[in-house]
Amino acid sequence: MNPIPPRPVDQVIAAARGFLGERITLNDAIRQQHSRGEDTTRPTLPDAVAFVETTEEVSRLLALCHAHRVPVTPFGAGTSLEGHVNPVRAGISLDLSRMTAILEVSAEDMDCLVEPGVTRQQLNAHLRDQGLFFPVDPGSHCTLGGMCATRASGTNAVRYGTMRENVLGLEVVLADGRVITTGGRTRKAAHGYDLTRLFVGSEGTLGVVTKIRLRLAGIPEAMVSAICAFETLEGAVNSVIATMQAGIPVARIELLDEAQMEACIAYSKLDHLRAVPTLFLEFHGSAAAVAEQAEAVQAIAAEHGGSGFEWAREAEARNRLWQARHDAYWAGIAWRPGKRGITTDVCVPISRLAEALLGAKADIAASGFEAPIVGHVGDGNFHTIILVDEGDAAQMERAWELDRRIVARALALGGTCSGEHGVGLGKREFLEPEHGAEALAVMRALKATLDPHGIMNPGKLLPDAPA
Amino acid sequence: MNPIPPRPVDQVIAAARGFLGERITLNDAIRQQHSRGEDTTRPTLPDAVAFVETTEEVSRLLALCHAHRVPVTPFGAGTSLEGHVNPVRAGISLDLSRMTAILEVSAEDMDCLVEPGVTRQQLNAHLRDQGLFFPVDPGSHCTLGGMCATRASGTNAVRYGTMRENVLGLEVVLADGRVITTGGRTRKAAHGYDLTRLFVGSEGTLGVVTKIRLRLAGIPEAMVSAICAFETLEGAVNSVIATMQAGIPVARIELLDEAQMEACIAYSKLDHLRAVPTLFLEFHGSAAAVAEQAEAVQAIAAEHGGSGFEWAREAEARNRLWQARHDAYWAGIAWRPGKRGITTDVCVPISRLAEALLGAKADIAASGFEAPIVGHVGDGNFHTIILVDEGDAAQMERAWELDRRIVARALALGGTCSGEHGVGLGKREFLEPEHGAEALAVMRALKATLDPHGIMNPGKLLPDAPA
Repeated sequence: MNPIPPRPVDQVIAAARGFLGERITLNDAIRQQHSRGEDTTRPTLPDAVAFVETTEEVSRLLALCHAHRVPVTPFGAGTSLEGHVNPVRAGISLDLSRMTAILEVSAEDMDCLVEPGVTRQQLNAHLRDQGLFFPVDPGSHCTLGGMCATRASGTNAVRYGTMRENVLGLEVVLADGRVITTGGRTRKAAHGYDLTRLFVGSEGTLGVVTKIRLRLAGIPEAMVSAICAFETLEGAVNSVIATMQAGIPVARIELLDEAQMEACIAYSKLDHLRAVPTLFLEFHGSAAAVAEQAEAVQAIAAEHGGSGFEWAREAEARNRLWQARHDAYWAGIAWRPGKRGITTDVCVPISRLAEALLGAKADIAASGFEAPIVGHVGDGNFHTIILVDEGDAAQMERAWELDRRIVARALALGGTCSGEHGVGLGKREFLEPEHGAEALAVMRALKATLDPHGIMNPGKLLPDAPA
Repeated sequence: MNPIPPRPVDQVIAAARGFLGERITLNDAIRQQHSRGEDTTRPTLPDAVAFVETTEEVSRLLALCHAHRVPVTPFGAGTSLEGHVNPVRAGISLDLSRMTAILEVSAEDMDCLVEPGVTRQQLNAHLRDQGLFFPVDPGSHCTLGGMCATRASGTNAVRYGTMRENVLGLEVVLADGRVITTGGRTRKAAHGYDLTRLFVGSEGTLGVVTKIRLRLAGIPEAMVSAICAFETLEGAVNSVIATMQAGIPVARIELLDEAQMEACIAYSKLDHLRAVPTLFLEFHGSAAAVAEQAEAVQAIAAEHGGSGFEWAREAEARNRLWQARHDAYWAGIAWRPGKRGITTDVCVPISRLAEALLGAKADIAASGFEAPIVGHVGDGNFHTIILVDEGDAAQMERAWELDRRIVARALALGGTCSGEHGVGLGKREFLEPEHGAEALAVMRALKATLDPHGIMNPGKLLPDAPA
């Protein structure tokens, strides 16, 4: 009788042990930590977790997985809200969080080169004394590699753009272990296919990002934050639309509805604020420009029932305000202990924002769920955090129904299912309605070209192929 | 004896006549007009020129060419400087210049949907009374389809970005005739692979763009132009570097060297100006912001030997100034009658601009050629227009040597062979030095996936495969 042949994944683990040693592990607690992100997907244990430290290690590990047809799921900080880091087909969870070197910073050219495990907070702490910052700010303690993977954006995108605009180039390890460099250091280029932007937003399904060249911004001469309370959600939304259409270059313009404000007031101890629809704003520029912008937005807000600005001019007060905004998701979850959140992420053209957001609000009311709303409304992007009992299957199904209704309306308004969180597992069903079958077929063809054995984050982004 | 079978291209022409009628033509003069662009490549006659008017016609024609393995070379306004529209393998020249509909304009969302034959001037004339403009401005009378194909930029890119940043979505006909829609109307999205940016800059080698959704900008409250003369080229370049590093949001900052100024003064009748290194500037914003920016740049220029600003505040004076700048290429050619231009297009990180530009200047002096220099220097991008006798093969070879030397220095400084003109025929040899063999292999794989028979603009962008 022949012995049972070793499983392919065991062959990979055994071979990888040769160059990773104890950094490829079968430890149960570690596998649990890598079984999903901050989402509500059903956790899946990877067969092993590999803590890589160099591009060469990534390359050798991927070449092994490619040869043995073993799935690889990249993992950064585990903050994904769409199931990206859930290794749904098991295999290797590739943890890049130890690749934290900041390799180069050029103050003259306002760019830097970092490894993917660096978080945006680490980078900004490093840059601060050079008068520079990296503006893309999703709020969570995510890694820059994860932000590349999901084409992240956040509160500053309305002024500074998303990862799409702020990544100058990448080093990528392809599925078969080959290493390529994309893009470059210049502000523009017409030098062939835009491989950088093919990988930005590809959610680990085409390769693994191992170095990132980022464009930086100068810390503005003046920064002022403000909050403004509104009588109605409609008034707040219409103020945003009018601000954007007036071309006022706000640095941040964020909306929290009354439910989200109630949650944030409790979580972040903002007892001086009221639980009414509120805009959080920030202005960047010269002192004169900031004053001019703030005055213009105040006038618009006043026309729509905004009750005057509360200012935060000092760094400490500003930081406290934005920390509260950044903690909105956690505040929402904590508001109703024991619940978890299903987060929608629709984005629409600004002229359709009122319809999309007030429509979502009505859907939430009709559904019986509690679902705080918070959004990067200057970009037409907002989230509803649908609070659910994860163990109640019928309730979960109703929550996903609500999610689908909010997305369907956004698509009908010319919007997208995801402004910034990515497709992952949760939004795959919307890809064909949004892009059409032919464009989806092109995406599948690109995937097959770059990852012929389908080992890179399988089950994510692309819907399962029709039978 | 069997009759000689018809050539594949004749079969395509015969079949296409069924739906294009006289709009597919073998007329000699028309084929001549489609034998190259504004470049110095050796003209090639296409077998036929097809003047398409609808997406469906493009789709049917490409499906035919795909089936019969007949090359297709898209043609817009014929302003390419890199040989893009030269049908080097004959076949069909696909002329899109009659697809000139402006299909939608949304002032509220500041976007529009246009056909590829619309020129930027036509679009801006159409937009003017809505307070909007399309900011990407390469100067020439090019089509927006051509601008997509080459990832064009130009004088405003330093403030408003390039086609990469300003194309929201596309309709593309693939090589086999399938029609896809990419991107969308939202300012950001994390909804799958970025097909839009895969096609922007692909130079007609992956498909044909038949609709373009563009992001628009509001016409600023105040616009002021100025020119500033310098004693030395170095002073002018260093003023640019200092301006950019100070983060001053200039809308345009263009450099013309003394040769280019001499040519422009003669061509555009700017007799009040001196043939010395000169910056052309423009400031956009509120009246206060414009004044603040202009003051800051004036102070920087004064430190570097700039001799005070000459202002152009009224639209007419501004337009005359920028018309002269836009005609720089034609002025360069006209400066030495009978000559044609080989145009370099290097782009470097801003900190290396002085080295790249002064190095190119020294190379030109050593070469014995006359070669005016003009550049979008805020982006680190500049052109040398090497004036050549096209019929003198030995001289042409020496001119290409000079071109190679200028590019090689830019690459060594972390730059690119092309900031905005594209790769076409002339820059293919630099693709592997710039990106590396593995990244080039990925580009080839993408091409093979989307155009398996290699019919789309063959011979362009990708270097010929190694034997």
